[in-house]
Amino acid sequence: MGGGTATAPMLAANRAFYRALSSGDLPAMDRLWSRERPVSCIHPGRPALSGRDAVMASWRSILTRPPAISAENPSVAAHGDIAVVLCVERAGTAVMTATNIFARSAEGWKMVHHHAGPVARPPSAPADKSRTMH
Amino acid sequence: MGGGTATAPMLAANRAFYRALSSGDLPAMDRLWSRERPVSCIHPGRPALSGRDAVMASWRSILTRPPAISAENPSVAAHGDIAVVLCVERAGTAVMTATNIFARSAEGWKMVHHHAGPVARPPSAPADKSRTMH
Repeated sequence: MGGGTATAPMLAANRAFYRALSSGDLPAMDRLWSRERPVSCIHPGRPALSGRDAVMASWRSILTRPPAISAENPSVAAHGDIAVVLCVERAGTAVMTATNIFARSAEGWKMVHHHAGPVARPPSAPADKSRTMH
Repeated sequence: MGGGTATAPMLAANRAFYRALSSGDLPAMDRLWSRERPVSCIHPGRPALSGRDAVMASWRSILTRPPAISAENPSVAAHGDIAVVLCVERAGTAVMTATNIFARSAEGWKMVHHHAGPVARPPSAPADKSRTMH
């Protein structure tokens, strides 16, 4: 993943996102999100939020009770100034997968989209293959 | 939301994806996914799949019983050669949100990532705001 591109800066931005999230650091979360590009966010089980005001309002609400989330196994697909970072989120026994999209700016990699959703059951369970909706 | 960029080609690619999905058209689905870039896919409730072989194997399985899914309310965030399309998916009474990422190539816009997950409850329900995990 990432080909010849050094993915360290995108991975660092991804770590900064989860650090801001789990520590309830709203200013850090605010700095992390792009001010130059359209941004959007899909929280687990929620409809999509579009625009910086709506996205930051959701973080303001969520970070009043910061969730203890850790991110594991990140991978980066680099597309020039856009990077798509996938990772597994763990919050207690809950497991989620996330798509995090970052855009390169003069101030580094800034988030433009976050989409997280629960993983229903262990990946190793073969019996639920037929239940995959799409 | 695309700014000055004409978003029609990305919206057409997004429509082509749902047409291939709901009609079980595996060759069309195969044509739709990029062969030049790293691709990945997160099906609802499932862990992430990385790489064209794994992603296409999942579609091969899913398209044997194509789900009757329609896409509504698409929006496009254009980032040069990368476009992030969000839309609402409906399959019967189930509602999902999707993040679809397309990359421009010589043969048009090709999918590099699909992430879909269920919306837990109506967006208008104010009581569940406190239940948002992140």
